[in-house]
Amino acid sequence: MAQVKARAITGFPEWLPQVKRIEQQWIDRIRAVYEHYGYLPIETPAIELLDVLRAKGDIDKEIYVVKKLHENASEKFGLHYDLTVPFARYVAQNQGQLTFPFRRYQMQKIWRGERPQKGRYREFYQCDIDVVDNGKLGLYFDFEVLYAGQEAMKALGIPEFVIGVSNRKIYEGFLEGIGVEDTENSLRIIDKMDKVGREGVAKLLREEVGLEAATIEQALLPAAIKSRDLSFVEEFRALGVHTEKTEAGISELASIMTMVAHAGDANVRADLSFVRGFDYYTGTIFEGKFVEDIGLGSICSGGRYDNLAARFTNRHLPGVGFSIGLSRIFGGMVDRGLLPDLNEPFIDVLVLRTDDNDLPEVVRLANVLRRRGYRVETYAYPDKIGKQFKYAGKRRVPYVWVASRDQAGQFEVKDMRSGEQALGDPETWKGEF
Amino acid sequence: MAQVKARAITGFPEWLPQVKRIEQQWIDRIRAVYEHYGYLPIETPAIELLDVLRAKGDIDKEIYVVKKLHENASEKFGLHYDLTVPFARYVAQNQGQLTFPFRRYQMQKIWRGERPQKGRYREFYQCDIDVVDNGKLGLYFDFEVLYAGQEAMKALGIPEFVIGVSNRKIYEGFLEGIGVEDTENSLRIIDKMDKVGREGVAKLLREEVGLEAATIEQALLPAAIKSRDLSFVEEFRALGVHTEKTEAGISELASIMTMVAHAGDANVRADLSFVRGFDYYTGTIFEGKFVEDIGLGSICSGGRYDNLAARFTNRHLPGVGFSIGLSRIFGGMVDRGLLPDLNEPFIDVLVLRTDDNDLPEVVRLANVLRRRGYRVETYAYPDKIGKQFKYAGKRRVPYVWVASRDQAGQFEVKDMRSGEQALGDPETWKGEF
Repeated sequence: MAQVKARAITGFPEWLPQVKRIEQQWIDRIRAVYEHYGYLPIETPAIELLDVLRAKGDIDKEIYVVKKLHENASEKFGLHYDLTVPFARYVAQNQGQLTFPFRRYQMQKIWRGERPQKGRYREFYQCDIDVVDNGKLGLYFDFEVLYAGQEAMKALGIPEFVIGVSNRKIYEGFLEGIGVEDTENSLRIIDKMDKVGREGVAKLLREEVGLEAATIEQALLPAAIKSRDLSFVEEFRALGVHTEKTEAGISELASIMTMVAHAGDANVRADLSFVRGFDYYTGTIFEGKFVEDIGLGSICSGGRYDNLAARFTNRHLPGVGFSIGLSRIFGGMVDRGLLPDLNEPFIDVLVLRTDDNDLPEVVRLANVLRRRGYRVETYAYPDKIGKQFKYAGKRRVPYVWVASRDQAGQFEVKDMRSGEQALGDPETWKGEF
Repeated sequence: MAQVKARAITGFPEWLPQVKRIEQQWIDRIRAVYEHYGYLPIETPAIELLDVLRAKGDIDKEIYVVKKLHENASEKFGLHYDLTVPFARYVAQNQGQLTFPFRRYQMQKIWRGERPQKGRYREFYQCDIDVVDNGKLGLYFDFEVLYAGQEAMKALGIPEFVIGVSNRKIYEGFLEGIGVEDTENSLRIIDKMDKVGREGVAKLLREEVGLEAATIEQALLPAAIKSRDLSFVEEFRALGVHTEKTEAGISELASIMTMVAHAGDANVRADLSFVRGFDYYTGTIFEGKFVEDIGLGSICSGGRYDNLAARFTNRHLPGVGFSIGLSRIFGGMVDRGLLPDLNEPFIDVLVLRTDDNDLPEVVRLANVLRRRGYRVETYAYPDKIGKQFKYAGKRRVPYVWVASRDQAGQFEVKDMRSGEQALGDPETWKGEF
């Protein structure tokens, strides 16, 4: 048989077990927080019909299409590239069987055929919550997904982060108020502040939108406004541009920040500097980053869409959601050596063997301990005892049991951390961890 | 915007939240058992290089290939169709960083482009454990994966099942011993006993292998031997065919069944009737079924391969594994209405609103209860109280809190099951579930 080089594909992360375990713990912790806020689990297939995935236009080129080998039929299926489109399809399809407001969490891998580069994956986990309601959706939910999302992220023990909150109406209204006509392109450019800097944005606004220097100067003023409290309201009003739209946006943002203040201890601030390019956000927008930049950029995001499932149903279904870029954060921390606890043992007890005939004893002993909740591995061979202890060291196991009883029916138990030896009865023994 | 019909694809299961929750509980329970046996978590990308996936020959036509939309390059990537090939690739690739024997569990979706039919999925979860070692792998591990696997299945609360254990050497040696030349095709046919019956197998052996009636009669004798204890040894020996190969197989199977007996309480029996078609199993083989057939056929399977990763490395890496067909079992039970607990509440407490200004109180109250471990949903609007209670009923929530304090700072708490009302302090209250 010809040999094939064993390799995974660039951009498709894969971890050693001690690392994968921590990723699983992160997923479990996020899930626990989401469930404590009353969010319901759903999981959608990785593969959707292409016409479902095409519901948004601009991402087509990143879709992976899927077909059977040697199949000549035209392309019909694709891998989902986010969890929002499948969620919208799911809600439209099952609307008769769901209770509204419908809160759901969904934590799955998604795929995007991006050009592979450091820190950019083509397969990654996202951990989303969204609420969708029938006809109207109160501003309370904007607060709720934001607050639950940041609680979930705090549960991970990651470096300090802050989530900016803004409202699309504020900047859009402001630009309209100062006479900018092409607000869409202007906002798209202003959103690049992080990447190209203030000068870069000014240059693009001049060259691509044709704004005058004085207008540009004014257009960039809101981007400097950030506050943990409600002071952003006065700062924005001091800029002297008030339209119905800006007032609506400022009022909504102030409500959310008031709720955040009442809930307390949130890694959240009002931040008018970002606008998010995606055209489906219509009100509240979220974007989170590490306070000390480790080069990851946006680590979570979300916002409100006036009508989530317009492509699939005539029902008016406003929604608001929050998405944690789990693989991006996790992979970033792995790459930078920031993960703790890589050496935690996987097991509590290792059972050692003494001779060829002790398997019945080994099997029974291990089973009694497992039924009492311990994680127990058995050494498979009656090797020399020194070799077995060496393996116990490699596995960093806290306790070793030797599978031969003394006359009183007790086993020898060694605490590998202290070196202490004692006799133990598997039915009553208690380990300390 | 043109509307698209919201629909998932046939063969790609998707559940309502109350069903998905139970699937998640199953996954959690299997994981807990696997971890209690010292198995380590790995997860491999859904997408592998096609030349990695092609390591086995006969399944090619079921592979889904993956490529970017509008990409003209030749097909390079495919979705994994099992977890064994990716595991073999992973072990070969990371062998320098793994401790052997390497026990791993892996619970992921896999994809097979089968023709959709009732109970056959094209996307499904498998929950696998495998052990692989360097050079040799003791028979103890055949017992361990089998025993851990059936423990994991017992944790699911599914109908009674039994896992048959056999050894490829027994039937192969037996056929050789009675003079059958084309053992490979004969075994493949005998393996169809469940599908085509004894007469059907006899017919195929006559027509396709050209066996005489007397040989066929003899060839089918081992298929009748099944025992929970070691009596299969005598029954097989009574057939009068002994070769080196049959003796090796019988001895290995007897060892495993002895360990099973010592461990106790296993849903396992020796069963010489099945041989499993896959050509990579070389010794022990497993196959599980429900005792009362509900039309699902095989619900778990596994076995031993002499050399797991021969396609990827020169190192000799024998392995043995056990795989639970989670989606097949779960979907089968959903289809037949066999799932319990669909009406368990998702939350413990619902906080009701009293007026437009109570959001600060609602948010604080809910947060205190959540921090104390309760799953708390808040009602978003100050609707009429009757409407709010109606929603509480729909959500089957055990407790309702009303977000207005009395003069002593207490809240009204209603047990929705008994109808009892009492006053509660969120810092000290204890719910009963």
